[in-house]
Amino acid sequence: MKKEILTLAFARSVFVEFISTLIFVFIGLGSALKWPSALPSILQIALAFGLAIGTLVQAFGHISGAHINPAVTIAFFVGNQISFLRTTRGNLAINALNNNTTAGQALVVEIILTFQLAACIFASTDNRRNGNVGSPALSIGLSVAVGHLVGIYFTGCSMNPARSFGPAVIVRRFSPAHWVFWVGPILGACLAALLYFYVLVPYCMNMSDRVAIIKGTYESEEEWEEQREERKKSMELTPP
Amino acid sequence: MKKEILTLAFARSVFVEFISTLIFVFIGLGSALKWPSALPSILQIALAFGLAIGTLVQAFGHISGAHINPAVTIAFFVGNQISFLRTTRGNLAINALNNNTTAGQALVVEIILTFQLAACIFASTDNRRNGNVGSPALSIGLSVAVGHLVGIYFTGCSMNPARSFGPAVIVRRFSPAHWVFWVGPILGACLAALLYFYVLVPYCMNMSDRVAIIKGTYESEEEWEEQREERKKSMELTPP
Amino acid sequence: MKKEILTLAFARSVFVEFISTLIFVFIGLGSALKWPSALPSILQIALAFGLAIGTLVQAFGHISGAHINPAVTIAFFVGNQISFLRTTRGNLAINALNNNTTAGQALVVEIILTFQLAACIFASTDNRRNGNVGSPALSIGLSVAVGHLVGIYFTGCSMNPARSFGPAVIVRRFSPAHWVFWVGPILGACLAALLYFYVLVPYCMNMSDRVAIIKGTYESEEEWEEQREERKKSMELTPP
Amino acid sequence: MKKEILTLAFARSVFVEFISTLIFVFIGLGSALKWPSALPSILQIALAFGLAIGTLVQAFGHISGAHINPAVTIAFFVGNQISFLRTTRGNLAINALNNNTTAGQALVVEIILTFQLAACIFASTDNRRNGNVGSPALSIGLSVAVGHLVGIYFTGCSMNPARSFGPAVIVRRFSPAHWVFWVGPILGACLAALLYFYVLVPYCMNMSDRVAIIKGTYESEEEWEEQREERKKSMELTPP
Repeated sequence: MKKEILTLAFARSVFVEFISTLIFVFIGLGSALKWPSALPSILQIALAFGLAIGTLVQAFGHISGAHINPAVTIAFFVGNQISFLRTTRGNLAINALNNNTTAGQALVVEIILTFQLAACIFASTDNRRNGNVGSPALSIGLSVAVGHLVGIYFTGCSMNPARSFGPAVIVRRFSPAHWVFWVGPILGACLAALLYFYVLVPYCMNMSDRVAIIKGTYESEEEWEEQREERKKSMELTPP
Repeated sequence: MKKEILTLAFARSVFVEFISTLIFVFIGLGSALKWPSALPSILQIALAFGLAIGTLVQAFGHISGAHINPAVTIAFFVGNQISFLRTTRGNLAINALNNNTTAGQALVVEIILTFQLAACIFASTDNRRNGNVGSPALSIGLSVAVGHLVGIYFTGCSMNPARSFGPAVIVRRFSPAHWVFWVGPILGACLAALLYFYVLVPYCMNMSDRVAIIKGTYESEEEWEEQREERKKSMELTPP
Repeated sequence: MKKEILTLAFARSVFVEFISTLIFVFIGLGSALKWPSALPSILQIALAFGLAIGTLVQAFGHISGAHINPAVTIAFFVGNQISFLRTTRGNLAINALNNNTTAGQALVVEIILTFQLAACIFASTDNRRNGNVGSPALSIGLSVAVGHLVGIYFTGCSMNPARSFGPAVIVRRFSPAHWVFWVGPILGACLAALLYFYVLVPYCMNMSDRVAIIKGTYESEEEWEEQREERKKSMELTPP
Repeated sequence: MKKEILTLAFARSVFVEFISTLIFVFIGLGSALKWPSALPSILQIALAFGLAIGTLVQAFGHISGAHINPAVTIAFFVGNQISFLRTTRGNLAINALNNNTTAGQALVVEIILTFQLAACIFASTDNRRNGNVGSPALSIGLSVAVGHLVGIYFTGCSMNPARSFGPAVIVRRFSPAHWVFWVGPILGACLAALLYFYVLVPYCMNMSDRVAIIKGTYESEEEWEEQREERKKSMELTPP
């Protein structure tokens, strides 16, 4: 019984993530095409990406979390759905090394930018906070925007492997530095998670319990589960 | 007695919707004129439309809902009131197919953009949510802005039949694809409603009750009514 | 005793209003100078005015209300304080009829723009609201911004007699349509007050009481006073 | 025991301030480089600085306060870490007197701009407020943005000695008016503190107690400490 509900909730989340990614990629790339009538400015593209995330987190964050950072297959599918964007109007906002950026510099840039985004997400949805959090959706969206204001110049700004992979598949052009857009964001987000959840605002667990969790031998998980549940609920719905 | 109050409230809502639409169309179109001194940028127009909606929802959303999506006759009237905008300064932000967009592509664009706006509205005003919603007015306004950041290039961005119909009437020029700006927004908003209220966050009703509601034979409507009332109240005033 | 406290509070408010206006005029006009290195864009000026108001309402709104709409003498003084802005870099954002706008059109524009701003202020600070109001400071600031996005083209955007009078005094150039920037904003704000407090969300008073208030013969003012007090408190401090 | 915890919390804060400053300087300066492909606009740079602060306050404000205004040594270190920004692409957003601004004018500008930022910070995090504060992180970020919209033209906009010192060290070029970026921000912030905490919203203490605090002879500090603690907690976490 309970299992079935969980499965339904999971299917819903997957569906919502799929829809959100479809819309995000559509808006992001659509706003960054090299329109001949009025070339989009850097600020305009940054705000389009950022406000798109802000809107989608507001709309769907309480249902699926709206990570909009889906597995590769979904990105692939999304890529094909929006194929009518595959025009001659520029390179479809492909992530690549711009302005003589080296792969090493690009990696540092992606790590730093994803780090600030992930830390903002963790803090905005941390239900252990007492103070005034404001709007999580808007804060996360503006964090994406500020990442683009810098990152566009260096790498086109990924902060998300799926966002890099999708367009690369559509135009069938993989930059030699494509690995940067997988390693950088993943590393930056992991660093932020380690910092936030282990150093800055740790959950109260001793080290042996943590090791046990990773090994899968942790047994008295109630407390931990409870905390995770509560955390998850902070953006969720009550039954009507 | 109760009827009279309802009628008064309804008259108020109609009046507010009328005022809001007047201001929205005035700001939106006024900011998009082809001023010779300083041509408005795409970002500027997008923010003007978005912040106008944000302000009007903040000002009037708790009274009438501030849909700013009025019936045709009102749009017509509005159109005539702002006739001094009918200048030689460009096409008054008419919705039409730009940049070689086909009618089919335009339809897809309008569906997607209205979908994200409608989902954002539903989620922002869903009083069953526990978490931190932030400012509904601002979220909805920025959702309108992000729609324009993409849509202006393809169709001028409608997301609202009235917003397309009004200017078309004023300058007496109906694009052959005018139907797109009726079918697209309506379809997109309906899809979002189906998804949000039936799939993602359904009200607790069985199918036969739903069918009964549509047929008009549903009797024990108390629960449903209550939920709707509560939902409506979430942006409303308490009696002083 | 009580009187003295009231006087102190009043002196504080006057002082804060003075400081706020000084900063507002400084930021607004400073950001709109015709800098030769990088001419400010319309969007940039609109956001400077809007975010300045948003910041000042956030900083001082709970103390004095932060109307930033001071009496003429203060504006005069402010004008002299910022005299180093009186450079040869353009007309110091003087309000005047631009782009062939007639005085009648300018009046309509100022009425509509001040109307939306005033309605946004009334609704954002109405403590009778139950729903989610978000950030009043930000909403009011963005309402100022959207006003400028349209108004700059027609009149330079006043929405505030003091904002028009100050710069006119500094550069000693009064536009023949200077009256528009007094009549328009005052009329627009009064219309919004009439609509909001008498039609849309009226306080519960009968007509004879209202007449009595205006005549000064109203006696049982307790209820009314209480409501006003409560309203005022909504942005105020508790004693520490 | 208690001491150890305090020390740990202090080490955490220092670490977070260091990380935040690293990211802030990286984003701010990175977004302001003279990229040949698309020169950043003033508005774009202002929003990059502002939204960076907004994001960092949202992410880390509840841990360390996120002043991002660190001691000189940290700024120094940060400076060296981001040395790959030391390119030939312009002057790395060095603070200096632009557009024929005199040192005196620059001082006034920095005082006014830091004053409005500091007042916004004090009011946004004042836990004695009852009303609707909105999002402190966003308000503070937008206050930084509006400061840049004006200040960039005069001085490049400092409002923060570390932000001026870091880049000056990297490119080894100290403007003769470098002192302005220490005296101005410190004076402006102190003036705001005096105004806010002593004139506008004073804590209830008599003058002799205040003198005693400064002399270090104040003994019954409980009440004062309590208030400070409470104030600090307003953006803090509860133990899980």
